[in-house]
Amino acid sequence: MTERETVGFIGLGLMGKPMALNLLKAGFPLVVHSRSRGPVETLALAGARVAASPAEVAREATVVITMVPDSPDVELVLAGANGVFEGVRKGAVLIDMSSISPVVTRRLSAEAAGHGATLLDAPVSGGEIGAIQGTLSIMVGGDATALERVRPILNAMGNPERVIHIGESGAGQICKVCNQMAIGGALAVVSELMALATKAGVDPAKVREALLGGFAASRVLEVHGERILKRNYKPGFRAGLYHKDMGIAMETARSCGVPVPVSAVVAQLVGAMVASGHAGDDYSGLAQVLFEMARV
Amino acid sequence: MTERETVGFIGLGLMGKPMALNLLKAGFPLVVHSRSRGPVETLALAGARVAASPAEVAREATVVITMVPDSPDVELVLAGANGVFEGVRKGAVLIDMSSISPVVTRRLSAEAAGHGATLLDAPVSGGEIGAIQGTLSIMVGGDATALERVRPILNAMGNPERVIHIGESGAGQICKVCNQMAIGGALAVVSELMALATKAGVDPAKVREALLGGFAASRVLEVHGERILKRNYKPGFRAGLYHKDMGIAMETARSCGVPVPVSAVVAQLVGAMVASGHAGDDYSGLAQVLFEMARV
Repeated sequence: MTERETVGFIGLGLMGKPMALNLLKAGFPLVVHSRSRGPVETLALAGARVAASPAEVAREATVVITMVPDSPDVELVLAGANGVFEGVRKGAVLIDMSSISPVVTRRLSAEAAGHGATLLDAPVSGGEIGAIQGTLSIMVGGDATALERVRPILNAMGNPERVIHIGESGAGQICKVCNQMAIGGALAVVSELMALATKAGVDPAKVREALLGGFAASRVLEVHGERILKRNYKPGFRAGLYHKDMGIAMETARSCGVPVPVSAVVAQLVGAMVASGHAGDDYSGLAQVLFEMARV
Repeated sequence: MTERETVGFIGLGLMGKPMALNLLKAGFPLVVHSRSRGPVETLALAGARVAASPAEVAREATVVITMVPDSPDVELVLAGANGVFEGVRKGAVLIDMSSISPVVTRRLSAEAAGHGATLLDAPVSGGEIGAIQGTLSIMVGGDATALERVRPILNAMGNPERVIHIGESGAGQICKVCNQMAIGGALAVVSELMALATKAGVDPAKVREALLGGFAASRVLEVHGERILKRNYKPGFRAGLYHKDMGIAMETARSCGVPVPVSAVVAQLVGAMVASGHAGDDYSGLAQVLFEMARV
């Protein structure tokens, strides 16, 4: 069954390009479309067919993956002029791997159903490195049967143990929101405590070492803590995109009627990071905002 | 050298009692004092001598450990009437393992030096279970030579790999403050995201599972996340003591001139937990504050 799938891939950015290359490596016939020419050429050289529009991708593919920055981009690619919905085959599975609003996801899922297709939301975690190595975590919302059909495709881009069905349509995006909130809270307090240690005359590297041995241990303290110690904020995952994600988190929490006072402060600090010209830095550079406030 | 040390132990509470028992098990001659009679009798039966006051403990011991709730308690036990400083031997090492203000620690350290003794601050992490199992993390501030002298004693209570010299006097307490900030931030956002997932109709257990595989992974999500899912808030580590710790964190950050906006909100939420009658719950019960706000 899987061998007969033709996969369409729309959006060959920092994440999408290596993900699409991993699909080719795994042997899937691939049709691609992207606004930027460079990555399209790379994929063509690697063996992908090139389509002139999302509609054309959809006409050729049984499974269509989208990986674009934000909700309006997904809306345009799926429901816009020359969009996927204009060419989509009956029975196709659409997999939106972008990180977007769960509300928009659910609306587009209903529209897809109207065209005889199934939309899964399948945002990822793991960054550019995870995309390149094919070790992404993939949080899937939507029809479980459709997920089983496309699981071999997702397994080619992610860690098969971390391709997880979270729940119905939108649940993948809700999970991604939760992921970004968890990381943000940890990142902000690691930044705060490193500012405090430094200003108190205590070696923040020693503090990190001690904390990693106990209940305070986290991947953020381990990986981003190291970046913060070295003040190395080369992306990685850009703060501008993280700011978008925290915006979705705030909007989602508000629409669900859930007060999130700590995440709200984190979102404001991420906003301060972007406002002060650090949108292109890695999001671990959030520490700069706290360090600047404390003159560390 | 170590075999000749007589260890004094003051404060046989939830943490102190099992820590003192581990010293006996390791073969150290032990003199104890505590306000509560029950634990004193337990220690006496296990082979410890009982002293009538902290001063008497200090007269008999070459190393004196204090493990009491807060800064005023340590001040009273060391510098108060019949306190350690009244009986302390020249060359003694005092180890305060309580979690208290770094400012108070530094003042008491200078006083101890005036009596010919050395005070180390050595707060712990790992809770009652760590105290019982002898696997505590111990964050040490003060003279490095004194630490090497008492290291075998600390190793009997903690994980030897996690008995870490952080820096000069007060650095252990600063590190403990950092530890509590890191845990608090993680705990608050885990609570927020579980409230959000639940209210959005997504299984928070699935979300936890997915997040544990990626960058959002933390010991807090793993251990306290499980408690929150089961709504099991039996202590463990009481919220009342955590509230005290976050108070020290706020005071320390303020006195160092370090804005800690995220930790400040966490401290307020912990205050709300205590104010709403949950001081006796495990601190992971912070989730209740967020869940109540969202009517989850």
